[in-house]
Amino acid sequence: MKLGLDISGGDFAPKANVLGAILALNHLPDNVEVVLIGREEEIHPILKENGGDFSRLSVVNAPDIITMKDHPTRAIPQKPNSSISVGFELLAKKEIDSFASTGNTGAMLVGSIYKVNAIPGVIRPCITSVLPIVEGGNSIILDVGSNADCKPDVLYQFASLGSLYAKSVMDIKDPKIGLLNIGEEEGKGNLLTQSAYKLMKGSDDFNFIGNIEGRDLFNGKADVVVCDGFTGNIVLKQAEGIYSIAKEIGIEGTYFDRFNYENYGGTPILGVNSNVIIGHGISNDVAVKNMLCLSYDVVESELTRKIKEAFK
Amino acid sequence: MKLGLDISGGDFAPKANVLGAILALNHLPDNVEVVLIGREEEIHPILKENGGDFSRLSVVNAPDIITMKDHPTRAIPQKPNSSISVGFELLAKKEIDSFASTGNTGAMLVGSIYKVNAIPGVIRPCITSVLPIVEGGNSIILDVGSNADCKPDVLYQFASLGSLYAKSVMDIKDPKIGLLNIGEEEGKGNLLTQSAYKLMKGSDDFNFIGNIEGRDLFNGKADVVVCDGFTGNIVLKQAEGIYSIAKEIGIEGTYFDRFNYENYGGTPILGVNSNVIIGHGISNDVAVKNMLCLSYDVVESELTRKIKEAFK
Repeated sequence: MKLGLDISGGDFAPKANVLGAILALNHLPDNVEVVLIGREEEIHPILKENGGDFSRLSVVNAPDIITMKDHPTRAIPQKPNSSISVGFELLAKKEIDSFASTGNTGAMLVGSIYKVNAIPGVIRPCITSVLPIVEGGNSIILDVGSNADCKPDVLYQFASLGSLYAKSVMDIKDPKIGLLNIGEEEGKGNLLTQSAYKLMKGSDDFNFIGNIEGRDLFNGKADVVVCDGFTGNIVLKQAEGIYSIAKEIGIEGTYFDRFNYENYGGTPILGVNSNVIIGHGISNDVAVKNMLCLSYDVVESELTRKIKEAFK
Repeated sequence: MKLGLDISGGDFAPKANVLGAILALNHLPDNVEVVLIGREEEIHPILKENGGDFSRLSVVNAPDIITMKDHPTRAIPQKPNSSISVGFELLAKKEIDSFASTGNTGAMLVGSIYKVNAIPGVIRPCITSVLPIVEGGNSIILDVGSNADCKPDVLYQFASLGSLYAKSVMDIKDPKIGLLNIGEEEGKGNLLTQSAYKLMKGSDDFNFIGNIEGRDLFNGKADVVVCDGFTGNIVLKQAEGIYSIAKEIGIEGTYFDRFNYENYGGTPILGVNSNVIIGHGISNDVAVKNMLCLSYDVVESELTRKIKEAFK
């Protein structure tokens, strides 16, 4: 198995990315190789200095960099020698099994849709985030930002995608799907959630448990929380804000530590034809390691094949 | 000044409500009276037992109760002798200066709109919630649930209403108005926030500082955070969830204590022709006291008159 990694993306590139790859290989089975995609002349010295295991690491040179300032839709055609463009080329040619990056999220989403394409039947690919549950374990929420405006059938598909992800990658047997809403009863909500509820109710594609409210996000009432990307992004960033405050006021060694992005490493883009994983721009080496471990789990679980089958 | 209080609403009625009124009078100026609206035969014993000051307390009998199970739009006409119906009658006849309740929120909203009416020019009245700021002080967020679907001009009006509230009741000189969004730059967001941004930019009605993200909700970047009622309600309940978790895991004596609803007592309904304040259904006596103190602040600040003038 070959896991591709963008070495030029993120705030602490290239060093944190290369170190993350070295750390990951200590945790991953022997049949896993990591392909480092970035500036050769920067990668080699870091590998030498830190004892990178060359038998399971290879380097593909990509001299250019898509920065956070590049326009997401124009960046890939404008910079064909960037690490993100090269990564998608390798993925499209099946020379790597997954491609992970902590770089420009917009460019990663655009690359996923134009270079590897949405799975036929999937209206809008989406991204997830982890919700740490107080009693232990995690739920996920989706979409968290790639689709700000959604129609009810798109939310229905998010439920299917989330359910498949929870089953395949998180090993949850019969994931409980909740619709994020502003009341528990059917009929509550805005026009979108009222309609989505009607579609989701009685579905055979997933185990719909009804509406859940903002106060239930962290109590495990649902394993998969479905919402439009606008709402999900606000929820995610509010949680990040709470985590920052807990750190700032010196609360440590508690539940709130579990909001640390480092633990999760990133999210796959659900609903595209290959395995694309995006990480947080502020990722350090531990976060990059976990992004690669997530890449491994996603490839190993054959999530993409399962989604293709479900959407046939 | 006469502050009306629903004695039958809320989970701990009638006792917590009567005790809250007694507590409030200890804090409020001598010219303030509280009018207790509810079941006379229940109120008198509580007052006697707890030394209620009858010179500043009066009772208006309202034998019926609108419960949480009553339908919000039908409850008031169906139960004219309920405490909420009687409260709105007194308010409409100007026999009280404000009416506060911890009862059925839907019925309170409906009563506000049909019994005292929206201020001419206000498209959709709304409700607010407090956002405690880490460095001290509070911001507010609106709407938090009365308008799940909003148009851009409605968000614009929320900004005006929030700005007037922050100036008048919270004593903030030139309140910074932020639009809750999923990116900082203009052009980010869903269709609603993209359009609302264009309307709000350069407004002379308030001090618009641009988009703010979920992570900025508690850092005081904006004094007034504007969003549709769906998003605001999710934010509010997520914060309530975090507060419950902090208590559950034994974090006390920190910033998170400031999420306790007791401290705030409630929210006025902004944009109606009189002073209506709604409180949390789980209000104890301290929360009811604070709801009456808020009623006093709202009446004293002449907020309703200021809103009428601004919307002329």
